Amino acid sequence: MALQQIYRTSLTLLTDLYQLTMAYGYWKNGMSEREAVFHLYFRKHPFEGGYTVAAGLEHAVEYLQQLKFTEEDCSYLRSLKGSQNQPLFEEAFLDYLRHLEFTCDVDAVPEGTLVFPSEPLVRVRGPLLQAQLIETPLLNIINFETLIATKAARIKEATKGDQVIEFGMRRAQGIDGALSAARAAYLGGADATSNLLAGQLYNIPVRGTHAHSWVQAFDSEAEAFEAYGAAFPKDSVFLVDTYDTLEGVKQAIEVAKKLQPRGFVFGGIRLDSGDLTYLSQQARILLDEAGFNSTSIVASNDLDEHLITHLKQEGAQINVWGVGTKMITAYDQPALGGVYKLAAIKNKAGEWEYKIKLSEQLVKTSNPGMLQVRRYFSQGRYLADMIYNELEPIPEQEQLVHPLDSTRRKIIEPGTKSKELLVPIFREGTLVYELPSLASIKMHTKQELSQLHESIRRYVNPHNYPAGLEENLHQQKMDMILKLRSTKSVGEV
Amino acid sequence: MALQQIYRTSLTLLTDLYQLTMAYGYWKNGMSEREAVFHLYFRKHPFEGGYTVAAGLEHAVEYLQQLKFTEEDCSYLRSLKGSQNQPLFEEAFLDYLRHLEFTCDVDAVPEGTLVFPSEPLVRVRGPLLQAQLIETPLLNIINFETLIATKAARIKEATKGDQVIEFGMRRAQGIDGALSAARAAYLGGADATSNLLAGQLYNIPVRGTHAHSWVQAFDSEAEAFEAYGAAFPKDSVFLVDTYDTLEGVKQAIEVAKKLQPRGFVFGGIRLDSGDLTYLSQQARILLDEAGFNSTSIVASNDLDEHLITHLKQEGAQINVWGVGTKMITAYDQPALGGVYKLAAIKNKAGEWEYKIKLSEQLVKTSNPGMLQVRRYFSQGRYLADMIYNELEPIPEQEQLVHPLDSTRRKIIEPGTKSKELLVPIFREGTLVYELPSLASIKMHTKQELSQLHESIRRYVNPHNYPAGLEENLHQQKMDMILKLRSTKSVGEV
Repeated sequence: MALQQIYRTSLTLLTDLYQLTMAYGYWKNGMSEREAVFHLYFRKHPFEGGYTVAAGLEHAVEYLQQLKFTEEDCSYLRSLKGSQNQPLFEEAFLDYLRHLEFTCDVDAVPEGTLVFPSEPLVRVRGPLLQAQLIETPLLNIINFETLIATKAARIKEATKGDQVIEFGMRRAQGIDGALSAARAAYLGGADATSNLLAGQLYNIPVRGTHAHSWVQAFDSEAEAFEAYGAAFPKDSVFLVDTYDTLEGVKQAIEVAKKLQPRGFVFGGIRLDSGDLTYLSQQARILLDEAGFNSTSIVASNDLDEHLITHLKQEGAQINVWGVGTKMITAYDQPALGGVYKLAAIKNKAGEWEYKIKLSEQLVKTSNPGMLQVRRYFSQGRYLADMIYNELEPIPEQEQLVHPLDSTRRKIIEPGTKSKELLVPIFREGTLVYELPSLASIKMHTKQELSQLHESIRRYVNPHNYPAGLEENLHQQKMDMILKLRSTKSVGEV
Repeated sequence: MALQQIYRTSLTLLTDLYQLTMAYGYWKNGMSEREAVFHLYFRKHPFEGGYTVAAGLEHAVEYLQQLKFTEEDCSYLRSLKGSQNQPLFEEAFLDYLRHLEFTCDVDAVPEGTLVFPSEPLVRVRGPLLQAQLIETPLLNIINFETLIATKAARIKEATKGDQVIEFGMRRAQGIDGALSAARAAYLGGADATSNLLAGQLYNIPVRGTHAHSWVQAFDSEAEAFEAYGAAFPKDSVFLVDTYDTLEGVKQAIEVAKKLQPRGFVFGGIRLDSGDLTYLSQQARILLDEAGFNSTSIVASNDLDEHLITHLKQEGAQINVWGVGTKMITAYDQPALGGVYKLAAIKNKAGEWEYKIKLSEQLVKTSNPGMLQVRRYFSQGRYLADMIYNELEPIPEQEQLVHPLDSTRRKIIEPGTKSKELLVPIFREGTLVYELPSLASIKMHTKQELSQLHESIRRYVNPHNYPAGLEENLHQQKMDMILKLRSTKSVGEV
């Protein structure tokens, strides 16, 4: 239960004010308990990629489990004033909040699962007021962790199996920007982190050696290496670029030779600046000549999947990749644009009414219903995903329609194996899901990626994985859009 | 004390493993207590801007105040194993940590102060082991909050005095990515936040209205507006783009007219998509025609300083700017590259030895000494900054040398008024600084910006503010670089 270990404060107010003003409005209008369905999904893969790795569910669950308006929360809400200095909320509403218990059904895609645009990562069904209230924290947690897990998967892919160490804390976006990102990076593909607190809280392997300041603190580089080697005879990686990189490599080799008779194991050297291809090649030659063939070369310096690929193509002799800023902040796209949209609500008669949010762009129009995702597969390979409405029947002949181009369709061969992606997490507010260990989530991510064709895993101009709307759902959406637009005449904006 | 309100866990392990391995190495070598000086500074303004707004000191202070290895921290460190499964640290070292008290002197630039490349934002002087240990968390906190405060200042500048509301929580980088960023954004220029928990913890004004889902939850848009207007008769801003923006504006106007006799105040409408210039102009016409001349138009949708400027130039009729993702993640540059470098250390004889870290790029070579910054000003305008070494005398005739181009120099006219930027924060581990309120920090930022020439405040191709090295410091640095490089011959790499 990491969130509860980390946070002292109630996180119930970790939401936008407008969730509370809407809650108040629903309460005033007797609509608080109306049953509604919301979906959390994104519209476009991050990094122009071909897949996204779902993450953040564990923290989302922990947030929902602690959801409870404390006296302190209520007294803060009581203190809020409107523009004419009147209290923003009635006391009876605060009383309602104080007694509020979370009673929603939540279904979600397990962490580490690959997901595609428009597919719900989380589905919330329950009283309108509650289901609305949790929008902002769910988005905050799922958007960020999914973003970082995806970035880490791409970086790991680029290294073609080499070790990746996450060490971005110093440039991360705040304390939790480092902590939950370290977890997400590990889940997505990183092998270890430099972040000790993340190591402690999430049981992630930690790695690290020394900084330039270690070398500077001694009178000479050789003295610094020797002192470090003596302190860590079995685990020394020497940072060699404090003054001059190849000179540093030579010094490291001399020190290693000197310490060897005392049982020293020369683990590695680290390059942190300059032309990493050239320097790693020269360093490899120097190390091999000295007989240190199994000494690793660790490299860092603004690495990401693109730079790593270039370095490998150029023949860089790097075994371990230290990745910081570019991974921990998802530097080239530091936010995932996940949204949380109302898709169905029961009317006063208790019947479901479907809802969409229109937009001039079809990609921004939401999907109606209570959605589930069916994933088809064969012989260890994922074939296609179908988003469908659980509240409506599906034709025997299953057919997908591309969400943005209805002329692109795919008929599913009868008998194709499939599984449903969303699994029950909460039922009437009670957790019914056993949270997997981080190690097993990491394994799951790896298995998921192995089932995706490599043309889709590619991180530049990937192939599109077929993920579409079930035919009836597509038709219903089109009908709703046309109906909502029917009042407009030609010539109107 | 927000951090202690927020975090339950000890944050002492919120650092990189290598800080602990170095600590162990210093301890093993009897160097833990050697007095050292480190500086935290950046090399380049973020966003290609002309200034940076320092932020994060309060959280840094709170982190330092709680610094203490708990039993739990030590037992985690005890559990760490080396490559041959041996314990990474000796028990006696853990015992040393358990009794460690923070005893450093810390000087820093107050939050809201404008800072320039190479100027220390934080200076730590004290036992080498301690001063090294705190590198990562100081960088994490100061880098991020400074980045966001600077972004917010730029965005506020672009609005030319209009209100800016921060509402990026849903896309922020984790929980603290939202919380501390909401504070930094407010400090730098935002007028309010949508983030209730940030409002509660930091006493920031909160703002918010309703989402698309509110409109969707009702049978018609008019019904939705009417219900919201009834709940908030004095504070309604209607979101008008759920189905069709200008149709939404008309509906909002009709509802406002209907509710007016019951004392309704039509606060505003919000546009969240489409052509904001055109739609805001049309909306203004419709509102004015209906007599709602003082009804605000709030706009949002991936806004930043550049887009806001374009919209204003095009004549958009927007009064309030809702800024989310682009501000809360500093989207176009999501990390500030601040570093923390050793600059001086006492030798065994107790004499200061100056230290630099070399680099092939002069901009990456650190500055030696125990640095302070002197800011010159005249008639409410900042003229120049001089970085100097407090441990050395300064010539009577003060002269700055550009840190990257020693041919650019500036002589300070005798008698020019000046002040020192770094102020004492901790003395021997005791807090000696009274943390200002967030409101007064915000005011300080505003005053700071008003003292900077507008050509430097400009956010595209700004003028360079003269911030240079004191002449002797420059000379000393050059001498050290040449000496460190003197062993290399022509023809060597």
